[in-house]
Amino acid sequence: MNAHALYKGCSGSFDGAQDGSAWLVSAMPYLDKVERKLGETVASEVDTAFDISMHLFSAGGKRIRPALAILCALATDPMADIERIINFATASELVHMASLVHDDVVDETSERRGTITANAKWGNKMSVLGGDYLLAKAFALLSLEHNNEIIRVLSNTAVTMTEGEILQASSEGSIEAWQENYWRIIKGKTAAFMGACCECGAIIAEAPAATCAALCEYGLQVGFAFQITDDLLDIAGDPALIGKEIGTDLMHGKFTLPALIALEYLDPQDRRLLLGSLGNSQITRDEVRGIADKVIACGALEQARQVTVDCAEKALAQLSCLADSEYKSALVNLAESVINRSV
Amino acid sequence: MNAHALYKGCSGSFDGAQDGSAWLVSAMPYLDKVERKLGETVASEVDTAFDISMHLFSAGGKRIRPALAILCALATDPMADIERIINFATASELVHMASLVHDDVVDETSERRGTITANAKWGNKMSVLGGDYLLAKAFALLSLEHNNEIIRVLSNTAVTMTEGEILQASSEGSIEAWQENYWRIIKGKTAAFMGACCECGAIIAEAPAATCAALCEYGLQVGFAFQITDDLLDIAGDPALIGKEIGTDLMHGKFTLPALIALEYLDPQDRRLLLGSLGNSQITRDEVRGIADKVIACGALEQARQVTVDCAEKALAQLSCLADSEYKSALVNLAESVINRSV
Repeated sequence: MNAHALYKGCSGSFDGAQDGSAWLVSAMPYLDKVERKLGETVASEVDTAFDISMHLFSAGGKRIRPALAILCALATDPMADIERIINFATASELVHMASLVHDDVVDETSERRGTITANAKWGNKMSVLGGDYLLAKAFALLSLEHNNEIIRVLSNTAVTMTEGEILQASSEGSIEAWQENYWRIIKGKTAAFMGACCECGAIIAEAPAATCAALCEYGLQVGFAFQITDDLLDIAGDPALIGKEIGTDLMHGKFTLPALIALEYLDPQDRRLLLGSLGNSQITRDEVRGIADKVIACGALEQARQVTVDCAEKALAQLSCLADSEYKSALVNLAESVINRSV
Repeated sequence: MNAHALYKGCSGSFDGAQDGSAWLVSAMPYLDKVERKLGETVASEVDTAFDISMHLFSAGGKRIRPALAILCALATDPMADIERIINFATASELVHMASLVHDDVVDETSERRGTITANAKWGNKMSVLGGDYLLAKAFALLSLEHNNEIIRVLSNTAVTMTEGEILQASSEGSIEAWQENYWRIIKGKTAAFMGACCECGAIIAEAPAATCAALCEYGLQVGFAFQITDDLLDIAGDPALIGKEIGTDLMHGKFTLPALIALEYLDPQDRRLLLGSLGNSQITRDEVRGIADKVIACGALEQARQVTVDCAEKALAQLSCLADSEYKSALVNLAESVINRSV
């Protein structure tokens, strides 16, 4: 099978495609280019390497990281070099996908976004190697950029990401560890990388150092808001939309922010119930839903939602360094959309 | 626990330390610096990230990849920048260790070099993340180098390595796939990376393009010789020295070169026996040893050994571009040592 021929017959997809968000409208023409570049980049004479990659791409995704890089670059300078922006944006999605495929091995996930995961289809062995392949491809693509600063930011962020994942895995099932490490874990899992995507977009557009730093902080706060919204959806989302059952994170031993807040408000019996659900794969789905209802009823969900609003506001405050433009408006809209999403 | 303090109390070790090889004598002062740099580089506030890394380092290893980089740089220019050489050599060992720890997850290995593997100690989850951590650290270290060519060579080699591993995993248990892909698999597993280490050493020493290419080819041939010698040891090595039983590769579904050659010479019954051992975890150790004896008796082992000699000769022929020096002699000695090793 000719890998490249296969790619031409296989259109990528991203979950936002049916979404009319303003940020997506502004980013869409460039995201289409990223989609094509993703397929070109992972072309391989080794069929399985290509097949795993294309399986991941065709499962879709929000493509929020490439969108952040694209919008930050164009909001800094609408005439910035599109080819360089697309290269970086593509590399950022490759790094993200590498982390997802390794996460699925780590969590033994069999379904993501309603599609069978690579580890369920090809086994852990191929998934570990497939993730390594995508990561290597990302750095190979970045090496064409001839910009050492980009490599420095992205590789250091990859370090922070793996440290965050290791910290999360070490903290599983321990409430004390989660209370101590929650912000560091979500920074590593999500926020640091979104910050890096924004910073690198600004670097490519040759923004002054202060703008690069402000956009990095914007991405960091958007990332916090994004991850905590994931936490909200784990407690109160619609399983049909988010593609997983309520309380899945809790059952995997991952404390969410609403659950951490609820520990302060629940009565001793409900508190014990909540703690008993953490990392407990024996618990029934009905029991988990009962616990989620208590987390909502005690007001913890609403408090956690307020935290996402605070993060989005902190993100928006960083944008004052930018001149008004379609792309700045898109960044404003993106920060707002992140906390209002239901998927 | 202070990660740096722990490192200071923990001396690294490499298997060659008791070996009086000329190449090792020349490389030793620099390998000591690499050993220190390895510990410094993986220091992390996340204890488990550091612990996994140090577990891997203290298990030792031949450190042949950093030695190749160091010797190629100094054989090109004895006054080459030592700090840059050590940085690259350290990054090369980090990439190698990342690939080992992921291999151990892939192969479900519980012991390597006589030490419990990271996946046996921390589980697959932490080992996947630990490998990602080492790889990210390698690229973060290389980004300090401000040399895009190095990043380009190493990231493209990482692509070739993962493609080779994926091809090997796809070929498991299929004799036709192994016959077709053997050289490509061992290029990806071992040879391409050794070639890249030599090439990057030459690049750091600012060698002319022809010298960089010649040293890349030297490393590639040394890598082929190294990997085929591993194959010989799987058939005829001393389990006490190599730290694993005879025929372990065969039982994992990996064809070795002696086994591939033996297929041409064995009588039909022994041929069936050999094919039946491939990827057969039910086979007894005595049966595997019996098959190995037949591979030796039919002359296939000796033919495969001759291939290592040919590769070493091809490697040596590349060194004519270098002026005579202690480091050139060390490279000659290294190519010869690789095919004469028993461990």
